Amino acid sequence: MDPSVEIVSIGTELLIGKILNTNVHWLAKRITSLGLPVHRIITIRDDVNEISNALLESMQRHPIFIITTGGLGPTLDDKTLEGIAKALDCKLEIDDQAMKFIEEKYRRYVEEGLMEKVELTSPRKKMAKIPIGAKPLFNPVGTAPGVLLRKKSVVVISLPGVPPEMKAVFEESVVPLLKEAVGKATFFEASIEAMAVMESEIASTLGKVMQNNPYVYIKSHPKIKKEHTQKISHLELHLSTTAEDSKVAKKRVSNALTQLIELVESNGGKIKPSKKL
Amino acid sequence: MDPSVEIVSIGTELLIGKILNTNVHWLAKRITSLGLPVHRIITIRDDVNEISNALLESMQRHPIFIITTGGLGPTLDDKTLEGIAKALDCKLEIDDQAMKFIEEKYRRYVEEGLMEKVELTSPRKKMAKIPIGAKPLFNPVGTAPGVLLRKKSVVVISLPGVPPEMKAVFEESVVPLLKEAVGKATFFEASIEAMAVMESEIASTLGKVMQNNPYVYIKSHPKIKKEHTQKISHLELHLSTTAEDSKVAKKRVSNALTQLIELVESNGGKIKPSKKL
Repeated sequence: MDPSVEIVSIGTELLIGKILNTNVHWLAKRITSLGLPVHRIITIRDDVNEISNALLESMQRHPIFIITTGGLGPTLDDKTLEGIAKALDCKLEIDDQAMKFIEEKYRRYVEEGLMEKVELTSPRKKMAKIPIGAKPLFNPVGTAPGVLLRKKSVVVISLPGVPPEMKAVFEESVVPLLKEAVGKATFFEASIEAMAVMESEIASTLGKVMQNNPYVYIKSHPKIKKEHTQKISHLELHLSTTAEDSKVAKKRVSNALTQLIELVESNGGKIKPSKKL
Repeated sequence: MDPSVEIVSIGTELLIGKILNTNVHWLAKRITSLGLPVHRIITIRDDVNEISNALLESMQRHPIFIITTGGLGPTLDDKTLEGIAKALDCKLEIDDQAMKFIEEKYRRYVEEGLMEKVELTSPRKKMAKIPIGAKPLFNPVGTAPGVLLRKKSVVVISLPGVPPEMKAVFEESVVPLLKEAVGKATFFEASIEAMAVMESEIASTLGKVMQNNPYVYIKSHPKIKKEHTQKISHLELHLSTTAEDSKVAKKRVSNALTQLIELVESNGGKIKPSKKL
């Protein structure tokens, strides 16, 4: 099986629709661009059993990385590490390195005038309590460190839920690991807009192009535009692939693109190169 | 176990980070506001086995509704119904009612000048091929009908992935079912902003308020504001509950709110009512 990644997004605020999950969008895009496919995104609430179950279920699908986001903070409802410890049957313990990261942060907050003096209260220490055997990942933006834990053939990485913190820990500590895992593989994508053609008109021949290009993922996004009083249907066609070699990836996409353009034009459609790419 | 909903969001474009998943955000908010808790959101690619597996796994958690979105269109990569049929071990068959919905749509497209004449080609007929025993749900905005299938104690509802279509089918055909299932239960939320207080400062006492109010979900969202050259930490505190009676729901939230305000003020923080609510 190809190496893959699963994302576990943790936070009740996501399940009540209070927050739009931009974190998983950013992570999926970034991980894909590094050449690793994201096979599943699971969103669950801040609940120890839910987190533990989601992790165990994910491990059964054998991704090489499980990346969680959210639930690393000082409050009682931040339960991610407790859930991971439950799933992996290990204990949480104050980690010296994590404690140093946190102390350093509070010292900086004092310098910045955010607080008067460094007091390592129990909620603050909670952020340094990580599963035994795990490694804390420095958080350059906020307080709670990320956490990395290797278990058999999977690496479980926990990132904070605050978007700038999540991104910073990912870029600093996770990207190098993913790059190492992925080797030379690259992701390549292209997109065209086909005007005056309906998805259902070209669906059969689109299917043929898909079958001719099994390594290229082709997705059609139907849209209807209004020009003056007239409705015009158009389609965005998006092509993407991941290959060991960037030349191969580009060639695959450009071959499929040529076939798609022919297909659209032979159905009376017009091609407009997408502005996005 | 309390009745709950799971959302299965289907589309490779979501896993490569091409599209931000606004659909599940909208659905989660809307379902919660109707008084039903969303317990899990699963995002998977357009793959028959993935769809089938996700559905079977979800059914083991016994939600009363599983709502899928995406993958109902005419193209080869729209595989939602195939995946559902595989999971539930049933066949897909052209449904007369679904076919009528689709014919009616194409007739309207001809009237609107989007196409010259109604031709029910095989990709168009594909959208009427639904699991035997399922019921098509009229799509007031686009072509592909939604699909409803009752299986033992769960209702599986498939909605289109195009946002306005998804919303329209949900409002027209799904809301009445959810309302019926939920009875009188209502969701109530409130939110305050606590200025000049850090999350880690009030975490312990926040924990006590949470324990005193077990039916109220309290989430703190830490933020740092810059005022002139000074950084000020502040917190958004969001409270929500679902109760059988709207008065009970409001009372629960207002009790917790009173305790929270006391807590923040006794820690030297200032309360600013949130603009959002």
